[in-house]
Amino acid sequence: MSKDKIRIALIGTEFMGRTHSNAWRQVIPFFEPDLEPVLKVVCGRDPEKTKTFARRWGFEDSSTDWRTVIQRDDVDVVDLALPQSMQPEVAIAAAKCGKHVFCEKPMALTGTEAQTMLQEAEAADIRHYVNYNYRRSPAVALAKQIIDEGRIGEIRHWRGAYLQDWLVDPEAPLGWKLKKEYAGFGPHGDLNSHSVDLAHFLVGKIESVYCQKNTFIHQRPLESGSADMGPVDVDDASQMLVKFANGALGSFESSRFATGQRNANQFEIFGSKGALRWNLEDLNRLEFYSNDDPIHIRGYRSILATEAEHPYVGKWWPPGHTIGYEHTFVHAVADFLAAISTGQPISPDFSDGLGVIQVLEAAHTSAESGQRMNVV
Amino acid sequence: MSKDKIRIALIGTEFMGRTHSNAWRQVIPFFEPDLEPVLKVVCGRDPEKTKTFARRWGFEDSSTDWRTVIQRDDVDVVDLALPQSMQPEVAIAAAKCGKHVFCEKPMALTGTEAQTMLQEAEAADIRHYVNYNYRRSPAVALAKQIIDEGRIGEIRHWRGAYLQDWLVDPEAPLGWKLKKEYAGFGPHGDLNSHSVDLAHFLVGKIESVYCQKNTFIHQRPLESGSADMGPVDVDDASQMLVKFANGALGSFESSRFATGQRNANQFEIFGSKGALRWNLEDLNRLEFYSNDDPIHIRGYRSILATEAEHPYVGKWWPPGHTIGYEHTFVHAVADFLAAISTGQPISPDFSDGLGVIQVLEAAHTSAESGQRMNVV
Amino acid sequence: MSKDKIRIALIGTEFMGRTHSNAWRQVIPFFEPDLEPVLKVVCGRDPEKTKTFARRWGFEDSSTDWRTVIQRDDVDVVDLALPQSMQPEVAIAAAKCGKHVFCEKPMALTGTEAQTMLQEAEAADIRHYVNYNYRRSPAVALAKQIIDEGRIGEIRHWRGAYLQDWLVDPEAPLGWKLKKEYAGFGPHGDLNSHSVDLAHFLVGKIESVYCQKNTFIHQRPLESGSADMGPVDVDDASQMLVKFANGALGSFESSRFATGQRNANQFEIFGSKGALRWNLEDLNRLEFYSNDDPIHIRGYRSILATEAEHPYVGKWWPPGHTIGYEHTFVHAVADFLAAISTGQPISPDFSDGLGVIQVLEAAHTSAESGQRMNVV
Amino acid sequence: MSKDKIRIALIGTEFMGRTHSNAWRQVIPFFEPDLEPVLKVVCGRDPEKTKTFARRWGFEDSSTDWRTVIQRDDVDVVDLALPQSMQPEVAIAAAKCGKHVFCEKPMALTGTEAQTMLQEAEAADIRHYVNYNYRRSPAVALAKQIIDEGRIGEIRHWRGAYLQDWLVDPEAPLGWKLKKEYAGFGPHGDLNSHSVDLAHFLVGKIESVYCQKNTFIHQRPLESGSADMGPVDVDDASQMLVKFANGALGSFESSRFATGQRNANQFEIFGSKGALRWNLEDLNRLEFYSNDDPIHIRGYRSILATEAEHPYVGKWWPPGHTIGYEHTFVHAVADFLAAISTGQPISPDFSDGLGVIQVLEAAHTSAESGQRMNVV
Repeated sequence: MSKDKIRIALIGTEFMGRTHSNAWRQVIPFFEPDLEPVLKVVCGRDPEKTKTFARRWGFEDSSTDWRTVIQRDDVDVVDLALPQSMQPEVAIAAAKCGKHVFCEKPMALTGTEAQTMLQEAEAADIRHYVNYNYRRSPAVALAKQIIDEGRIGEIRHWRGAYLQDWLVDPEAPLGWKLKKEYAGFGPHGDLNSHSVDLAHFLVGKIESVYCQKNTFIHQRPLESGSADMGPVDVDDASQMLVKFANGALGSFESSRFATGQRNANQFEIFGSKGALRWNLEDLNRLEFYSNDDPIHIRGYRSILATEAEHPYVGKWWPPGHTIGYEHTFVHAVADFLAAISTGQPISPDFSDGLGVIQVLEAAHTSAESGQRMNVV
Repeated sequence: MSKDKIRIALIGTEFMGRTHSNAWRQVIPFFEPDLEPVLKVVCGRDPEKTKTFARRWGFEDSSTDWRTVIQRDDVDVVDLALPQSMQPEVAIAAAKCGKHVFCEKPMALTGTEAQTMLQEAEAADIRHYVNYNYRRSPAVALAKQIIDEGRIGEIRHWRGAYLQDWLVDPEAPLGWKLKKEYAGFGPHGDLNSHSVDLAHFLVGKIESVYCQKNTFIHQRPLESGSADMGPVDVDDASQMLVKFANGALGSFESSRFATGQRNANQFEIFGSKGALRWNLEDLNRLEFYSNDDPIHIRGYRSILATEAEHPYVGKWWPPGHTIGYEHTFVHAVADFLAAISTGQPISPDFSDGLGVIQVLEAAHTSAESGQRMNVV
Repeated sequence: MSKDKIRIALIGTEFMGRTHSNAWRQVIPFFEPDLEPVLKVVCGRDPEKTKTFARRWGFEDSSTDWRTVIQRDDVDVVDLALPQSMQPEVAIAAAKCGKHVFCEKPMALTGTEAQTMLQEAEAADIRHYVNYNYRRSPAVALAKQIIDEGRIGEIRHWRGAYLQDWLVDPEAPLGWKLKKEYAGFGPHGDLNSHSVDLAHFLVGKIESVYCQKNTFIHQRPLESGSADMGPVDVDDASQMLVKFANGALGSFESSRFATGQRNANQFEIFGSKGALRWNLEDLNRLEFYSNDDPIHIRGYRSILATEAEHPYVGKWWPPGHTIGYEHTFVHAVADFLAAISTGQPISPDFSDGLGVIQVLEAAHTSAESGQRMNVV
Repeated sequence: MSKDKIRIALIGTEFMGRTHSNAWRQVIPFFEPDLEPVLKVVCGRDPEKTKTFARRWGFEDSSTDWRTVIQRDDVDVVDLALPQSMQPEVAIAAAKCGKHVFCEKPMALTGTEAQTMLQEAEAADIRHYVNYNYRRSPAVALAKQIIDEGRIGEIRHWRGAYLQDWLVDPEAPLGWKLKKEYAGFGPHGDLNSHSVDLAHFLVGKIESVYCQKNTFIHQRPLESGSADMGPVDVDDASQMLVKFANGALGSFESSRFATGQRNANQFEIFGSKGALRWNLEDLNRLEFYSNDDPIHIRGYRSILATEAEHPYVGKWWPPGHTIGYEHTFVHAVADFLAAISTGQPISPDFSDGLGVIQVLEAAHTSAESGQRMNVV
């Protein structure tokens, strides 16, 4: 018996275009979704490159005109892998065409745009999702389960950090992620957004925020090796202190100047009964401490989250066989397909994505003013 | 321009059948091999299950008759994912048909069989490969590079261990891996073989060996939950002490009773100038110690092997984005395709696979006799 | 040839009284100081307990009257191990008597008091020292050396945290450390003060600060097991974001509610060429990352700081033999004795101790006002 | 009220002389033993050096004639810190004088000597102790407690290793530890003996053993920097495979050529219900894995053994304040004093010390013959 098919249009052919393509491909044998994705068409700027991308990843067709693509009758899902400056227009248009929207994060440059995206998506009654993919690391999903089981009690502290070091080199060129026009923020948007989403997921709503930022290197080569320089107009590092609605204190730290940290998305959570720790550089492990243990055997447990009993990971390999970064995208796609199939919502959706932007915007205002800000 | 294709027949649809299928699929977009694999046909015992497997993984055809399959004109490569007892017959037949052979490890139950496989493969002038996949973990390949660069000097010690715990439960059923008829040995074959191959790769030839083994639980349920019991006639744990031809001492430890160790394939190497450590449960990391460092800053470096400068891994994602267990199979397939394309040999081949079995056989004789044994 | 002696009066017989007594005893055989300390007299509140303390730790005499003690002709050094509320009066009086002062941290409740202590110590031309003992952990002293050697370049980030969990239990009693009258602050003073001193030592002057605090449990039993409750009027947790004069960003986090963290005084420093990490719970180790390494072998080195080439530790045992918490006090005493002997100043002195309090006070004002504050 | 005193004569003024002296000093304030040790006399070869040692460590008297010392009426305990070749004669003479004997490990060169020592000690009805000090690391004592509580079930595997690297440098001189005449064995005696004692303590009796050894560098300078060379006639590395009486398998590995391992005395124990891990380089921590945990939160716990609930350590500092190498000696001395005070035996005594030597001797015979040997 053949399965129902669902036809995907991918917009964007860079790094995230590749992670999404891989996810649509891999979900089929490993998750055997009720709705089987068909890679219908990919859309990019350059016709030749896009054709090559299509051939490489198995898309049936390619295009350079997203407006046409999102209107195609043979497209059910529009998958956005674009700079955040470009996502709102496409997402809104896709929603108006009644297409389900799978959207990279952050969904937009501003809360106003995100608000509109949400309204249009709700008006169109589509499935909408913002890809804060780390929620679907098995170890992070396990953290959520442990919290929901009451094992760490009432949460007192969130310590989030997302640290990278790719701008330590002053010769690193001025890519789009360093331009306010396309990226809005530096790591404040790119990295803090992940941490804020995880904090929302694991701890709850953030009520108020103080933020400080810095740009360490103000001019960079326009291209690698070029002598022509341009201005960096986003932050190189951004830190926040927050209070959560439930009374917990939180800290966030993001940087592209954290030498030795290649992709260290990490958190610690301290509760009245236990604690949790995680780091993306060791993504299969969750550390868990429990005051329920007798004192003499109390200590952080290093849980290798590769058991059939752990979220998602039983779909892959036997216990002890670890997965990597890319698998979190497959889990997201699997849940998105299930959401379409069942008509149930999926988190994080545009509402959750808007919530992240509202924190980042309040923080940005704080960094400008030196004042603590409430989050709307 | 379309690529040259190469057509794959997979024999075996269990765990290893899945890892191989995934590898043939994933190699295409990530490694863009000159020879592009086509999943032509998969062969299994049960016609319905094999059909389902074919559909799931994208094979064009399925079969229950391996003899027919290996003779097909539209098959170029025979990929064996079978218990070691069954591999020699198929491999030899495939070689005689002139098919290239990609073979799971251990390649055979005995050195005699392996020797024949090697002879036939050489006579047929095919590419032959035994899938000791951990050589192609980026961190392990980096270890090899560091050794070849002379950074740890003359090797004095190899400490290998491959520890699992899935038989700790006395109710774990009597699968084929616990039967001598199919598996030959217990972890002595399944796990020590991986360690021996890594030792051959990184240290060199093993000259003599002493071995002790134990079977802790002698009767197990025939199936999960069954009251019918059958005898375990392989080892539950096996340890070896060896001397290498270059004068180094080595130790090996394998067990399915190492509680808390889910898949801990690990080694330490101590040389006259430095040291290396690795563990499959944290496969993206290699630890490296160097006496070339000034004393006051000497210490094990924890290298996250995810840079473009590291073996294989630049084909996947940017630095800091880790890979998982399954990726080692993709690297193996990529190199195997390149070997076919260029006509160059690939390691480990049937000769290397035979070398591993010779160590295991000598060790087994030692365990039976209580005497140290030379390796042929 | 017998050595010159120097006679010590210890004021305070609690936890810090014990660590100081041990340090004066241990410095003799291990450091063989030019000036050999004599434990002349100890001063406490309760005559019997103080006598017992004297006998236990080898003091010649005991007293309950600190005013008499500091005036004794047979006392050269006054060693203060008191709550910070009580230290200024004794320290100032001791300085006026011309005694050298070894003072626990924080030195006072307020900057005003600390300023007076400094003035009187300078007027009396005595050696004065504030016991931020972690500067003298070999691994921390090594961090300073590595920074001074230029190995991590220009510092961009300081991430300090000092996390404990002894107040997670709501039944933990209301000791003096939870009362503003005696302690001034909660962990903001007790723990952040250590982190600020380390940041001053390793990074440099702090220019401005934002702080948020919280008290999670407002009423506690007056004594262990008592039904009578009293108010907690200090913070349970305090976090700061700072900017350093050299342009680096800093974060500080202190808590007594960090479940699973028993005494986790830790820092990370990211520079333009390298990085450093340390944690008191593993105090013999320093982690160091260097961009001077070739890319393919770059990683955090885990340095076991137990070599003769490392600061202080060669006085103890051969390489690989670790030391503990108490040894940092012995190092402090050794350097203090050397400072007296040579007439050279020692860091941190009252000026450094004042600098810490100025940061804490600015931070406290920030926490009250929600405004960023400059540090005087 | 003054305490009963017990008067100590220390024989030996090298490294172990220092660790013992420190222990006798430190036990007084921290453990407040019922019998308070008095450092009566120390005995060494060189009169001036021994006098200096006495002054430094607080001995009342010094001597170069051990025969006189052990006969002194004002001596109650003879403390041996000598090469193993010299210990039997002194120990036997001391026992005959009715002195209690605290003896460094290994107690003798041969089982025959050790047997005589035991007989004389029993005949004299003295307290006798062999200083396998690591039993009294709090984390190791906790491991014993966890085993005795049944938390890891029936033991299947012991993996012991004691790895050092101080002979990697071919210029390291030919000290007494490299001469068979004084040391008997190389690391086989010095390091394996510690591991065997821990295995006896934690797992039980060893029944049979296979051993292989190697000497990597055969000639070394007679003194540091000298051109005169002498032969190394002990092992540089020694490995053993054993079977325990309870059916467990064991492995041991000792080396002075394990580059990067400064003092890595470590073990792993796997049982039917749980597992334990420890390493002297991180001596305050014990890792514990329990199958009693629900599967989804199962993992190695990293226990910081610094709680009042943990063995010994509550005598030192509050939770989270770590101790070092030297403290294990203080614990040994405290228990030895208690044994004298109560008349109860203490472990490991001469019988236990003999048991260790019997394993080492059987192993040595195995290494010579290439045959597995039973332990008497």
